[in-house]
Amino acid sequence: MENTAQLSQTTDQIVISPEQLLAHWQGHRGLTRRLIEAYPEEHFFSYTLGGMRPCSALIDEVLQMADQSMQGVISGEWPSFSEGVEVQPKVTTKEQVLDQWDRVTQKINAHWPQIPSSRFQEVDKAFGLYEGPIYWFLFYLIDNEIHHRAQAYVYLRTLGVEPPAFWDRLQV
Amino acid sequence: MENTAQLSQTTDQIVISPEQLLAHWQGHRGLTRRLIEAYPEEHFFSYTLGGMRPCSALIDEVLQMADQSMQGVISGEWPSFSEGVEVQPKVTTKEQVLDQWDRVTQKINAHWPQIPSSRFQEVDKAFGLYEGPIYWFLFYLIDNEIHHRAQAYVYLRTLGVEPPAFWDRLQV
Repeated sequence: MENTAQLSQTTDQIVISPEQLLAHWQGHRGLTRRLIEAYPEEHFFSYTLGGMRPCSALIDEVLQMADQSMQGVISGEWPSFSEGVEVQPKVTTKEQVLDQWDRVTQKINAHWPQIPSSRFQEVDKAFGLYEGPIYWFLFYLIDNEIHHRAQAYVYLRTLGVEPPAFWDRLQV
Repeated sequence: MENTAQLSQTTDQIVISPEQLLAHWQGHRGLTRRLIEAYPEEHFFSYTLGGMRPCSALIDEVLQMADQSMQGVISGEWPSFSEGVEVQPKVTTKEQVLDQWDRVTQKINAHWPQIPSSRFQEVDKAFGLYEGPIYWFLFYLIDNEIHHRAQAYVYLRTLGVEPPAFWDRLQV
């Protein structure tokens, strides 16, 4: 009886499941993809505000971190950014960015079920840089994407382009 | 034995605990507070880019949603925005905004432990508008704050002011 009561309590305490976290992330990635689509090609690699990086560089940071993160999240073996383990060819068109984006979307979906369920609460040092529980690092990836995408929203607004609705993340 | 095995499996599957989610949110709110502090008073209520709202309005949206959300998250009884159940006096200085911010910080901390552990996975219609599980709504609040704060980062950069570091959310 005692075990059953504990089990019930523990099950109830789930805030978000691994599958829901994946859907949450991919929902945000779907919105970012639509932002890239909406961005004028002639400004994507060059337009900036306030001395910041152009949209292409913000997106590239988000893309590369997601791409390189999965192996470490699963196994604890992290590539080092400085060693440039898996450098992608430099992209020069939005179409190439979207192709990379879709490849990473599939990579995340394929790798996610391999994350051991105990892994989310394990403390690790992602890329040898970011120390904390794995759940914390995954939210860092998501939050960093929201942060940079929102900056691209301002770029778009000043270019007179309506960005996709922030709340619309149903299309994964 | 079977119950014990199930219990162990379920415990392992926790992605983020209610306490960790609270710390995650308050970590973001602490960063937003430092952004407000860094924002020049003379621009806070007026400066805009691309036809968007000034920083004060972006922050006010985030602040009011957090303020009004707790009762509904706990009980399922939501105030209606249109009815203006608990309208705060209009603020005209950063100091007043920071005072409201701190009041809401304490309100969230005080109410959070009252959220029933089963509540996070319950589907509800927050403010009669946002339908989904409670965990989803709480992430909407956090993500919306990250989104608007990042837009204020661009405003600040174009004003020549260095924003607080995005990754620095240790100070809750």
